[in-house]
Amino acid sequence: MVFERIAIIGLGLLGGSIGLAVAEHLPGAVTTGFDADPAARVRAAQRGLVSQVCDSAADAVRDAQLVILCVPVGAMGAAAEALAPALPASALVSDVGSSKQSVATALAAALPNNAVIPAHPVAGTERSGPDAGFASLFQQRWCIITPPQDADPAKVAALSAFWEALGSRVEIMDPRHHDMVLAVTSHLPHLIAYTIVGTADDLEGVTQSEVIKYSAGGFRDFTRIAASDPTMWRDVFLANKEAVLDMLQRFTEDLTALQRAIRVGDGAQLFEHFSRTRDIRRSIIEEGQDDARPDFGRSDHGS
Amino acid sequence: MVFERIAIIGLGLLGGSIGLAVAEHLPGAVTTGFDADPAARVRAAQRGLVSQVCDSAADAVRDAQLVILCVPVGAMGAAAEALAPALPASALVSDVGSSKQSVATALAAALPNNAVIPAHPVAGTERSGPDAGFASLFQQRWCIITPPQDADPAKVAALSAFWEALGSRVEIMDPRHHDMVLAVTSHLPHLIAYTIVGTADDLEGVTQSEVIKYSAGGFRDFTRIAASDPTMWRDVFLANKEAVLDMLQRFTEDLTALQRAIRVGDGAQLFEHFSRTRDIRRSIIEEGQDDARPDFGRSDHGS
Repeated sequence: MVFERIAIIGLGLLGGSIGLAVAEHLPGAVTTGFDADPAARVRAAQRGLVSQVCDSAADAVRDAQLVILCVPVGAMGAAAEALAPALPASALVSDVGSSKQSVATALAAALPNNAVIPAHPVAGTERSGPDAGFASLFQQRWCIITPPQDADPAKVAALSAFWEALGSRVEIMDPRHHDMVLAVTSHLPHLIAYTIVGTADDLEGVTQSEVIKYSAGGFRDFTRIAASDPTMWRDVFLANKEAVLDMLQRFTEDLTALQRAIRVGDGAQLFEHFSRTRDIRRSIIEEGQDDARPDFGRSDHGS
Repeated sequence: MVFERIAIIGLGLLGGSIGLAVAEHLPGAVTTGFDADPAARVRAAQRGLVSQVCDSAADAVRDAQLVILCVPVGAMGAAAEALAPALPASALVSDVGSSKQSVATALAAALPNNAVIPAHPVAGTERSGPDAGFASLFQQRWCIITPPQDADPAKVAALSAFWEALGSRVEIMDPRHHDMVLAVTSHLPHLIAYTIVGTADDLEGVTQSEVIKYSAGGFRDFTRIAASDPTMWRDVFLANKEAVLDMLQRFTEDLTALQRAIRVGDGAQLFEHFSRTRDIRRSIIEEGQDDARPDFGRSDHGS
């Protein structure tokens, strides 16, 4: 099974990148696209994110073999309902949402007559909107596919092949496990980053100008992910509440332990903790998930 | 007043970068250097980090007009005591430590007969040791100078001119204020990053391999600063305990508020918070303290 007609609903960073990656890696395929924002549709057409930008979700999916919903996870149900009347019964429906249990439930409820196989490409930048996408976003990144228990293996294989064609590595996972793994590797980091950037913004003794000037001391690393799309992230935290609150509880316990070590002056405990966190960075670089150059190769680095 | 003979004590990331930057920007100056680690001295000589690597701190400072201590803040007092007997009375002593009140106290006690003007170049990468330094580390970064109240203005001006020659922008600041500003822009971010990387390392339901594979979802951004030198950071937290604990308290309050918003499903509060943190990122890029390219221009980004 090969997808020749692919509909992309939502033409932001993820949807736009899928369209561009299909054009590059699957030149025989035709992509149709829709975005609820008229300005985004105009811009998507200008950039050529898909073969054809449509004026409704129904128009976009009418002939599709594969439909990929690229909207915030809280909008998945409504987006699916809007396209349901025009959706061919043979079309496979998938998505790119960052939480998978809630999306599986919403899509199954809205589209009882279609095969639904949720997926999550673990890739992104801090940018959003129709100008943010680029064809190589998925290169060397993992795409986690979370098929329902009764999914057709041929459809799972076809969706896997699609993501592999776009440059991804594919992993099949239970949706509940996905939500726990992503709570620690993505959702908690975003929550922490949003928090600390807000804390720095609120101080009475330190000006915002000082925070900005001296951000190279470490703070700036947090501001990148704290600049991510607010709607997307509001929805993620509400959709994956249980796993996020669990991870947050563990984080808070660990932070309290380090806080106590600082208060009582336990240098040995601090040193031990700070030493073991180096290895994980090395592993991430070896696995190709980050850049080994110091400072991520930021442009002012001269060596 | 221009420094023609500069001694650098500690030849790691900061000390080595100063040596290389002096060679590039102040070609008339001679640098001597010492590191307590014999292997680091060998490597420093191989890389040419300073004009001459010495076998003792005393030898390195014997003819110096400017001495810069580039050791962990907890080692400043002992390093100063070791070189005191050989230090010319006319030499100006400075440092690069990340906390300034504790360093000022330690250096003044160890060197009662010399002018001491502490400084902190707010620049660095996650690397440490004699292989980590590079000449452009200080370009466009701020160097905060914290002179004691009775400092000779001519010496403050000379130290400022030195750092400006190396590419820095210079700010004069009260040491107590420095410690508060850096607690939020550098120390708290490092503590948070060290904590979350440790939390992720300890989970029973998620494997370390999964954390690494899916780190591109946000987690990897924290691992960079959590790979920083453990000795340096142990010392920073112990030396700037009061300001760090104060900032940590504020952070925890803010995190608790967002935790409650998630628990009760208050999407409006989450959205409001996540929206205002975007502006600070934009300001940091405008100020030249970070890279505007998406994803910091990580090498696999294709646009």
